[in-house]
Amino acid sequence: MQINKHSIQEYNQGQLQEHSRRYDFAASSVKDVEGVLQKLMDFQVAIPSWALGTGGTRFGRFPGGGEPRSLEEKIEDVGLLHRLNGASGAISLHIPWDIPTNASHIKALAAQHGLRFDAMNSNTFQDQPGQGLSYKFGSMQHVDKAVRRQAVEHNIEVIEHGVALGSDSLTVWLSDGSSFPGQLNFRKAFENTLESLQEVYAALPENWKMFVEYKAFEPNFYSMTVGDWGQSLLYANKLGPKAYTLVDLGHHLPNANIEQIVSLLLMEGKLGGFHFNDSKYGDDDLTVGSIKPYQLFLIFSELLEGMDARGMNHATDLGWMIDASHNVKDPLEDLLQSVEAIMIAYAQALLVDRKALAAAQQENDVARCQEVLQEAYRTDVRPLVAEARLRAGAALRPLQFFRELKVRENLIKERGRKTVATGL
Amino acid sequence: MQINKHSIQEYNQGQLQEHSRRYDFAASSVKDVEGVLQKLMDFQVAIPSWALGTGGTRFGRFPGGGEPRSLEEKIEDVGLLHRLNGASGAISLHIPWDIPTNASHIKALAAQHGLRFDAMNSNTFQDQPGQGLSYKFGSMQHVDKAVRRQAVEHNIEVIEHGVALGSDSLTVWLSDGSSFPGQLNFRKAFENTLESLQEVYAALPENWKMFVEYKAFEPNFYSMTVGDWGQSLLYANKLGPKAYTLVDLGHHLPNANIEQIVSLLLMEGKLGGFHFNDSKYGDDDLTVGSIKPYQLFLIFSELLEGMDARGMNHATDLGWMIDASHNVKDPLEDLLQSVEAIMIAYAQALLVDRKALAAAQQENDVARCQEVLQEAYRTDVRPLVAEARLRAGAALRPLQFFRELKVRENLIKERGRKTVATGL
Amino acid sequence: MQINKHSIQEYNQGQLQEHSRRYDFAASSVKDVEGVLQKLMDFQVAIPSWALGTGGTRFGRFPGGGEPRSLEEKIEDVGLLHRLNGASGAISLHIPWDIPTNASHIKALAAQHGLRFDAMNSNTFQDQPGQGLSYKFGSMQHVDKAVRRQAVEHNIEVIEHGVALGSDSLTVWLSDGSSFPGQLNFRKAFENTLESLQEVYAALPENWKMFVEYKAFEPNFYSMTVGDWGQSLLYANKLGPKAYTLVDLGHHLPNANIEQIVSLLLMEGKLGGFHFNDSKYGDDDLTVGSIKPYQLFLIFSELLEGMDARGMNHATDLGWMIDASHNVKDPLEDLLQSVEAIMIAYAQALLVDRKALAAAQQENDVARCQEVLQEAYRTDVRPLVAEARLRAGAALRPLQFFRELKVRENLIKERGRKTVATGL
Amino acid sequence: MQINKHSIQEYNQGQLQEHSRRYDFAASSVKDVEGVLQKLMDFQVAIPSWALGTGGTRFGRFPGGGEPRSLEEKIEDVGLLHRLNGASGAISLHIPWDIPTNASHIKALAAQHGLRFDAMNSNTFQDQPGQGLSYKFGSMQHVDKAVRRQAVEHNIEVIEHGVALGSDSLTVWLSDGSSFPGQLNFRKAFENTLESLQEVYAALPENWKMFVEYKAFEPNFYSMTVGDWGQSLLYANKLGPKAYTLVDLGHHLPNANIEQIVSLLLMEGKLGGFHFNDSKYGDDDLTVGSIKPYQLFLIFSELLEGMDARGMNHATDLGWMIDASHNVKDPLEDLLQSVEAIMIAYAQALLVDRKALAAAQQENDVARCQEVLQEAYRTDVRPLVAEARLRAGAALRPLQFFRELKVRENLIKERGRKTVATGL
Repeated sequence: MQINKHSIQEYNQGQLQEHSRRYDFAASSVKDVEGVLQKLMDFQVAIPSWALGTGGTRFGRFPGGGEPRSLEEKIEDVGLLHRLNGASGAISLHIPWDIPTNASHIKALAAQHGLRFDAMNSNTFQDQPGQGLSYKFGSMQHVDKAVRRQAVEHNIEVIEHGVALGSDSLTVWLSDGSSFPGQLNFRKAFENTLESLQEVYAALPENWKMFVEYKAFEPNFYSMTVGDWGQSLLYANKLGPKAYTLVDLGHHLPNANIEQIVSLLLMEGKLGGFHFNDSKYGDDDLTVGSIKPYQLFLIFSELLEGMDARGMNHATDLGWMIDASHNVKDPLEDLLQSVEAIMIAYAQALLVDRKALAAAQQENDVARCQEVLQEAYRTDVRPLVAEARLRAGAALRPLQFFRELKVRENLIKERGRKTVATGL
Repeated sequence: MQINKHSIQEYNQGQLQEHSRRYDFAASSVKDVEGVLQKLMDFQVAIPSWALGTGGTRFGRFPGGGEPRSLEEKIEDVGLLHRLNGASGAISLHIPWDIPTNASHIKALAAQHGLRFDAMNSNTFQDQPGQGLSYKFGSMQHVDKAVRRQAVEHNIEVIEHGVALGSDSLTVWLSDGSSFPGQLNFRKAFENTLESLQEVYAALPENWKMFVEYKAFEPNFYSMTVGDWGQSLLYANKLGPKAYTLVDLGHHLPNANIEQIVSLLLMEGKLGGFHFNDSKYGDDDLTVGSIKPYQLFLIFSELLEGMDARGMNHATDLGWMIDASHNVKDPLEDLLQSVEAIMIAYAQALLVDRKALAAAQQENDVARCQEVLQEAYRTDVRPLVAEARLRAGAALRPLQFFRELKVRENLIKERGRKTVATGL
Repeated sequence: MQINKHSIQEYNQGQLQEHSRRYDFAASSVKDVEGVLQKLMDFQVAIPSWALGTGGTRFGRFPGGGEPRSLEEKIEDVGLLHRLNGASGAISLHIPWDIPTNASHIKALAAQHGLRFDAMNSNTFQDQPGQGLSYKFGSMQHVDKAVRRQAVEHNIEVIEHGVALGSDSLTVWLSDGSSFPGQLNFRKAFENTLESLQEVYAALPENWKMFVEYKAFEPNFYSMTVGDWGQSLLYANKLGPKAYTLVDLGHHLPNANIEQIVSLLLMEGKLGGFHFNDSKYGDDDLTVGSIKPYQLFLIFSELLEGMDARGMNHATDLGWMIDASHNVKDPLEDLLQSVEAIMIAYAQALLVDRKALAAAQQENDVARCQEVLQEAYRTDVRPLVAEARLRAGAALRPLQFFRELKVRENLIKERGRKTVATGL
Repeated sequence: MQINKHSIQEYNQGQLQEHSRRYDFAASSVKDVEGVLQKLMDFQVAIPSWALGTGGTRFGRFPGGGEPRSLEEKIEDVGLLHRLNGASGAISLHIPWDIPTNASHIKALAAQHGLRFDAMNSNTFQDQPGQGLSYKFGSMQHVDKAVRRQAVEHNIEVIEHGVALGSDSLTVWLSDGSSFPGQLNFRKAFENTLESLQEVYAALPENWKMFVEYKAFEPNFYSMTVGDWGQSLLYANKLGPKAYTLVDLGHHLPNANIEQIVSLLLMEGKLGGFHFNDSKYGDDDLTVGSIKPYQLFLIFSELLEGMDARGMNHATDLGWMIDASHNVKDPLEDLLQSVEAIMIAYAQALLVDRKALAAAQQENDVARCQEVLQEAYRTDVRPLVAEARLRAGAALRPLQFFRELKVRENLIKERGRKTVATGL
């Protein structure tokens, strides 16, 4: 299903009067509103190919309908999102779920939808049919060099697919670890993993980055071999300048201060990418901003502070991706809500009066520090985000328009009710 | 595969001298050693039918070989465990994974292995092929009365299967809940669930119990409709005298004091059953005693204190079951380790000098209270547990004998390498 | 220090134009704006007398200056807050920190400031100079009946002070529990505590309520004898119709779903009161809304849903109190921020489109449920809250006016730099 | 109060027969029992001077009697512990709580008791009377260079005291951090702290080590400026070869895998010291081994594996100290229980069959890995620990003898009932 520009314009036209009223009010309190809008328009969040189908847990999965049956249909879905919100202009592929049989065709298709290829994702946490050796006891950490070699080769293959598509980064998430005390020699597991990563690193093209993602637990329940930011940073530093840490919001122990981690990784020049989602208990992979929107704002506030301090470009110098699982919502609706929450948090962070904050910090005026942050957070920035969409030719209210267009019903008609997209 | 008594006796013979040396030493410090041994011999832990295959996570599953392909083979596996350790004399079935086509045949088969049928388990957390209505948004809590009715009828059917097999209890674990704020009206979800449970309760045979299991999170990640012991107790009290709370060790928020919960539920006369496993992060479903063996001991200590205070029979007045997932170990080995850990904790709890503890508590002599508990916990009770096995005709060292017999290799020969048992 | 009405009006005058612009915009989207404003004006949050001084941790305390030196000065401080924000019209006293030597004088003084006396608080978690028996090993749970008796008598004395002042409720927070396994017999501790509470309950005047507050941990680090809502509800049910559970936001295990607890307690007719604060790790006692403002909104949303379902009056049928510790902020500024955060969350909860939410819930339209909640939460309601203040004769921007008036500087001049208020 | 050697010998004589019976049994299964005993005799745990009095929480403190009133009496108390258990041969001082007025006298006194001076501890988490600038908003992180300078000078002064006493290490625990979002610029706080630490580092004598201790939360409740091992390692690496990370068991987020942290820090050559205690919720500072004894064993298992791999001396190459708070027990009894728990865990770790473990790890035989660890853990090693004490001239059962001697009663007679030792 395609949405043409004209229908969006028509839709926006009907919303315009109310939008203008709201936007005028919102804009009246923003200093450099044009600058803010431009930043909002530039900011793009990658959609992972595996987020387009209904996710599940180990207990079960309740598929919806009209899920994409091929890489082409996944690109179509992301294109549709991007058309609606103007902020989803990239897709992140997973190998082997998304092996492109004809890379140039796929690349051209993506370009038609205004999409680029974000970080490539490898998979050594599952065994694939026909795979020579099993990852049951890990991949890059494995005591058997042959298994490690297989994992390395898989990652190199993923890089090759990425090169063909025009991607320029590889995200390595390892489920390696142990479920029982004694199962692993932690040091040797680290050393094996480092050696494996070094072999992959050696195969990176000149302009590529490698993101080393960490996770505190699951699917291993005693230790993870890349378990926290400290471990990820150790690997990244030992690997070299192309290696970075990737932060996934759901991959921490309870109560972790993620915004401080972000700040320190930026200080070290080693923050590379970001996976957005939300959670209450563990890696719950819920819609971004659905549980802790203030934390999301605080993280964005640190991201901007740290990036600005290093002269980094918000839109291009970090990899931004959603990584969630849509168990009880329509995946496309969920993604629209997630991107909206990200844009809101980003807009709020842009509104923080940095000078006033720095001054209050300098005076240990803690109450004032809080006031400055909350002044930005409590502002209703939705009209600003909507205006950025309007200017980008996207829909003023993407989710509402999605429903008016009966997109899901159309997709089910096209693709059937019982399709199941590849993914978890 | 069957293990005959004679081969066990032969095996034990070879171990006997060393065992006697250890047992004599251990027994010399125990007051009523015969009483302790009898209690250890009486204590039986049910094995759930779904624990006989390799489990997995949402990220993947790495099957082993020789898994049971039918209910008959599951009974055979539990029979084998029971033959080895003399403490696994019950099996807990799950409907629809274990629908017996011929109940009397199955009952007779179990009896041959010395097994009885423990609590029956229903499943409304997954959709089955051909099922009329979906449980995607809950079962007994569902806003649609027809879905609730379907869930109730399923549970009544499970009771009927249980009656045919000679079981006398039903465990209801509901995954009902919500993954997002606003999704549920908590009160109505509670009321719907209560109404559904009441309908199932009305169908319980005279001598049956109903266990209402609670869980803090997963697969729902915002709220669970039977989420903690407080909620479970509310349901149980409103349902009536046949309804009890069931405690699963992995179903709590971080740092919960489970032993206190156990004590209070016994005080209220509402503790009905227990699911053993171990965990570090969430419902990790690891081998019992592999992460927090001291907590297990403390729980047993409260169980005995509370049961003794009410004159309850340790072996028969609560439902004891293992509920774990064997992702990286041979399931049968894992179960042997779990039962061993349970027996050790039970034996240690039996050794607690209750009089001395009560006296120290009465004097607020906290250091002494700790000494009394640790005196029991630090004692090496393995020879006592082994002696109980010896007297019951089971193997002195079950896991070692399991390996000597090459049980798994034999099962693979019999059943094949690629079998996958029903379960998660 | 006193602030007269006239100076507030003058201050508001200078803010009025900008306020009107913002208020008009905000009001334009609210259906029953007058009804909302009236509710905001009616809503009053009690200030605890111990929150007027600088708090600390076991590691240290860094006092500010100008802290109240007497009960009279505490009342003066709360009066000042109430004058500024029109929403702090009650004070909650703690015995023995606030024993009134002349109750009728104190009562009259409070009335002058427009304050009533909220719940009285007893203290059996510390030993006072000259106290006969020690609470080192608990108070109402104590193995020694004489200690329990002393605790009961203290509570009865607190009730008597309260009667003299016109209060009508008693909050019992017990630090009772244990720091080591074995220290307590959980059941006997519960029974002793129940017996003690029953004796206090028997002394309650006809129109009084008793609030049984629970806490998961601290100052006891193994078990708490009123440790969670389930335990508190057990006590409250056994005590009788005047006994209720009191929820303090910081008294839960990590990740607890407090909004669900609130909903279920309302369902049971047993929610009595609320202590506001915020926290990231434990009972951190931070400014309300400073860490998890969305959770605060969700809690308010459940409070309103549940109270409305029972026909309860928002303002009067539950006890609302702040309970925080001001370690690094001016206590009065902190309290102004806290009340503001509460009013914002309340206002947002009032804006929730209940009909739309109920309809979306009925259709399992999870994305829509979220939209309905977030529509209210993302609205900038500060102008509504300010308008309610304006109409109540309070300051449009209380914190800003507090600073302009140099209140703290004046208090230091009056009271000195080295005063230390009673409290933790 | 002093205990003479002769009375210990007499006491041991009465215990000897039963001890020998137990020891012979225990020794019979240990390969190199003499080697194990020697290691147990060599292992010494430092006692912090502030642990000799009753601790408390922010809610209150319930002092016992006979607490040491001076540094001399603290040394006497540690001497007494060391005399009883032969494993407490060091004391760790805190400045300004323990400023020695006459260092050579203090040094001689300690030597008389067989004690050496372990790591010196500085204090910038409290304001001292007469202190020029306040640490309310941090010390080494402070925005004001003058405050940082004061903190640096204090630490240098602590080093000087340590040099005079023969200590050779400095532990820096900073409570620096923030309690509210926005309060700190995380990066600048890190940079200020690093700069301050560098100035202290520059003042370290040639043979000294600096331990940078981390803590997740408390007394700051939003962020800590040395908050986890990753941050501590960053500082230590930037400081230089004399700087190390120090691990305190209670300073982690819930569910952290401390044993893995220990292993990785040893791999990096940056583990410097260890603070023992136990906890269920936060920095509860309970008796070592009272809550999670298996975790303690697993940590020791990693310590030995990692130290052996680097050829480190167990007894001397890491700093071992208890850091607990004795709120409801006699502090000396608590310390005796803590040291006993440490020695038991150390002995169990020494019994781990390293070769078998490595072989099982190499084969991914997870069940066997667990068996190897549990074989050691389930062994009753108390007779080995007692034998080591016997050979060192200490008491076979220190706590029992402590009570028989009525040590506390004697200390109260000597020092009075109302003494309060310096500390928290």
